[in-house]
Amino acid sequence: MSSTAGQVIRCKAAVAWEAGKPLVIEEVEVAPPQKKEIRLKILYTSLCHTDLCFWEANKGQNTVFPRILGHEAGAIVESIGEGVTDLAPGDHVLPVFTGECKECAHCKSEVSNMCSLLRINTDRGVMIHDEKSRFSIKGKPIYHFLGTSTFSEYTVVHVGCVAKINPLAPLEKVCVLSCGISTGLGATLNVAKPEKGSTVAVFGLGAVGLAAAEGARIAGASRIIGVDRTASRFLPAKKFGVTEFVNPKDYDKPVQDVLAEMTNGGVDRSIECTGNVDAMISAFECVHDGWGVAVLVGVPNKDAVFKTPPINFLNERTLKGTFFGNYKPRSDIPSVVEKYMNKELEVEKFLTHEVSFSEINKAFDYMLKGEGIRCIIRMEG
Amino acid sequence: MSSTAGQVIRCKAAVAWEAGKPLVIEEVEVAPPQKKEIRLKILYTSLCHTDLCFWEANKGQNTVFPRILGHEAGAIVESIGEGVTDLAPGDHVLPVFTGECKECAHCKSEVSNMCSLLRINTDRGVMIHDEKSRFSIKGKPIYHFLGTSTFSEYTVVHVGCVAKINPLAPLEKVCVLSCGISTGLGATLNVAKPEKGSTVAVFGLGAVGLAAAEGARIAGASRIIGVDRTASRFLPAKKFGVTEFVNPKDYDKPVQDVLAEMTNGGVDRSIECTGNVDAMISAFECVHDGWGVAVLVGVPNKDAVFKTPPINFLNERTLKGTFFGNYKPRSDIPSVVEKYMNKELEVEKFLTHEVSFSEINKAFDYMLKGEGIRCIIRMEG
Ligand SMILES: NC(=O)c1ccc[n+]([C@@H]2O[C@H](COP(=O)([O-])OP(=O)(O)OC[C@H]3O[C@@H](n4cnc5c(N)ncnc54)[C@H](O)[C@@H]3O)[C@@H](O)[C@H]2O)c1
Ligand SMILES: NC(=O)c1ccc[n+]([C@@H]2O[C@H](COP(=O)([O-])OP(=O)(O)OC[C@H]3O[C@@H](n4cnc5c(N)ncnc54)[C@H](O)[C@@H]3O)[C@@H](O)[C@H]2O)c1
Ligand SMILES: [Zn+2]
Ligand SMILES: [Zn+2]
Ligand SMILES: [Zn+2]
Ligand SMILES: [Zn+2]
Repeated sequence: MSSTAGQVIRCKAAVAWEAGKPLVIEEVEVAPPQKKEIRLKILYTSLCHTDLCFWEANKGQNTVFPRILGHEAGAIVESIGEGVTDLAPGDHVLPVFTGECKECAHCKSEVSNMCSLLRINTDRGVMIHDEKSRFSIKGKPIYHFLGTSTFSEYTVVHVGCVAKINPLAPLEKVCVLSCGISTGLGATLNVAKPEKGSTVAVFGLGAVGLAAAEGARIAGASRIIGVDRTASRFLPAKKFGVTEFVNPKDYDKPVQDVLAEMTNGGVDRSIECTGNVDAMISAFECVHDGWGVAVLVGVPNKDAVFKTPPINFLNERTLKGTFFGNYKPRSDIPSVVEKYMNKELEVEKFLTHEVSFSEINKAFDYMLKGEGIRCIIRMEG
Repeated sequence: MSSTAGQVIRCKAAVAWEAGKPLVIEEVEVAPPQKKEIRLKILYTSLCHTDLCFWEANKGQNTVFPRILGHEAGAIVESIGEGVTDLAPGDHVLPVFTGECKECAHCKSEVSNMCSLLRINTDRGVMIHDEKSRFSIKGKPIYHFLGTSTFSEYTVVHVGCVAKINPLAPLEKVCVLSCGISTGLGATLNVAKPEKGSTVAVFGLGAVGLAAAEGARIAGASRIIGVDRTASRFLPAKKFGVTEFVNPKDYDKPVQDVLAEMTNGGVDRSIECTGNVDAMISAFECVHDGWGVAVLVGVPNKDAVFKTPPINFLNERTLKGTFFGNYKPRSDIPSVVEKYMNKELEVEKFLTHEVSFSEINKAFDYMLKGEGIRCIIRMEG
């Protein structure tokens, strides 16, 4: 037992007081974990678009302030609450923004990872157990984000939202496997499942799309066609196995027609990682009839409508969507870390920036400027 | 070799001279099979909606007259043309409206049955080899339909469009496995693939939908929910394992919401067999998130558009379409006949009427009135 177990911990956290305003490093109190909760010491965290999106909160996002953002991290268990049996202080873990209770119909299904109890909830700012926050400043609650709130030296999470990983894995690298990278990778490896030698199109070459391309590379795809409307995304994508680039803006015709011409009728698999509904439609319509499979990953606007003539389905195309790459956080994420450990998955390519915790707002700046892929935030030092 | 091999055969055929006018039994000349063709003696044929549709030709169908319709049949090979090696006179076969060349990318793919060379073509009225018809009356061509034209005592088909079946199988029964029944059955068994104990919704309880329900029964589904706007379709469907019925007209809310309430969030699998785009949308939206799979079978109007919010995909629902139940005509249809032979598949339930060839117009009347499922047309006697 650590000496802090059962005690309130005072530590530093980056608090978002208001939408769009720089985070402020504050001293916060972190209450001990309650039933089925664990308290984590965060060593490294990174910034994902979802943090930025709920920080900006300028597109009707339902959000609560003051809040501690952050959901990609590498951490060590500091202490455990009542009823926690499969984790112990000292374990190395990745917190995840969605959970796995292991008891609901989704957790029992072989294919779903959409746990009824712990499924992502961007509105909730409190713990499920008692509907209270574990963070406070001078007694006033600071709210949680995605059940993870990793922009803090210590945080409390539900035990169903952490993956226990190989303690030999370097947390400063594998921390990025908490969200976006696993999402793209799983979209390809678990859902699109390209065969060796096949042709794969990836729509959107942000972190998620690059991870989808990395998945296609690992699966042995022989052509990986990157599609993006931002030309500056192309050069960095080469490292991820992307062999050809298509910018829809360069053509007068729909990009699905361009891809069909390039590939003798269509790609074998396509993975949409943009969140744009037109890209979703193109990603579906560009797959080959008879066997093509398209996978949607991007989170669309609330009022977006996917439209296509049904004959595109009858000609034996398949359309699927995925959430977190269909990985079950506790059961499957440890194996993604192992893919890195055995050198199948090249995580380093995603790590373009690093800042200390006190400079966390720089990470937001890089992302706002579209610079780089992932910025690692070091908690110590 | 039969004595007729290499000769023109004179026989009876039911000729459609004009759209919507009763077929006329005529004496026709049937030329010998050419390269990669075989000539068949049809023993039993049955009427499918697609025949009716191209006979009515009142919805902009591109069709040619005079034409010999018919594409569901049981037949015996009379003679073979040049280059035919895997069939011989006397073989029992089912002609199929779509083919399998065994050489194109589709035929080589493990999943596609959409042969590039022999894929269904409703416009073509001639043979591929020489772009000529094998039927004539006093030297004037009578056109083919779907490459099968089974409403004739003899017909010529491409060798890639026949399934060689078990000679012990009763042709007067298994003839219906040429099209609609295999389509519905395969949609369930090959594409939706429900697990034992699952809940399956079938939209549309015509021949195709009943065959989809039969597939769900064979797969061991515990609930099979039939959805149809025609109440008279319900009672006969009980024999096909349908356990519950929903008529969308009985509710003020979308039928997908009704099904979600009945099934604690959605069905495990749904199969759409209506051709109506609203039913397609409902069939997709009624499947459970996390694992639900919807399969489209019905042929839509040319200008139909499938619309749904993309979040329905991101919540891990899958949408597929199928053509001929994903069966490859030559490779797979013999095994469907075996399913009947070993009493898994109950074909008799589909056979509600029987007429002699001279009464073939009665079969059209039954279908126009919506009476029964399949009417067998006996060529002899
Ligand atoms: N499903 C999940 O579990 C999950 C998890 C994390 C992220 N996401 C989603 O994945 C998507 C991608 O995330 P990211 O962090 O990589 O974002 P990003 O903004 O870094 O990358 C998106 C890329 O898509 C490109 N793009 C946008 N519209 C396009 C179009 N019509 N055609 C071609 N390219 C287009 C942009 O130029 C950009 O390069 C987002 O929608 C995000 O919300 C989903
Ligand atoms: N994909 C293929 O390979 C293939 C092969 C054969 C037939 N088909 C198609 O399958 C479909 C069914 O064929 P069938 O012969 O069984 O037709 P059918 O007309 O006998 O049956 C269709 C049924 O759907 C019902 N229906 C129509 N709209 C509906 C709605 N909105 N909601 C609920 N029920 C509705 C009708 O009441 C009817 O009972 C047709 O579209 C046909 O073209 C496809
Ligand atoms: Zn669960
Ligand atoms: Zn994220
Ligand atoms: Zn072929
Ligand atoms: Zn048919």
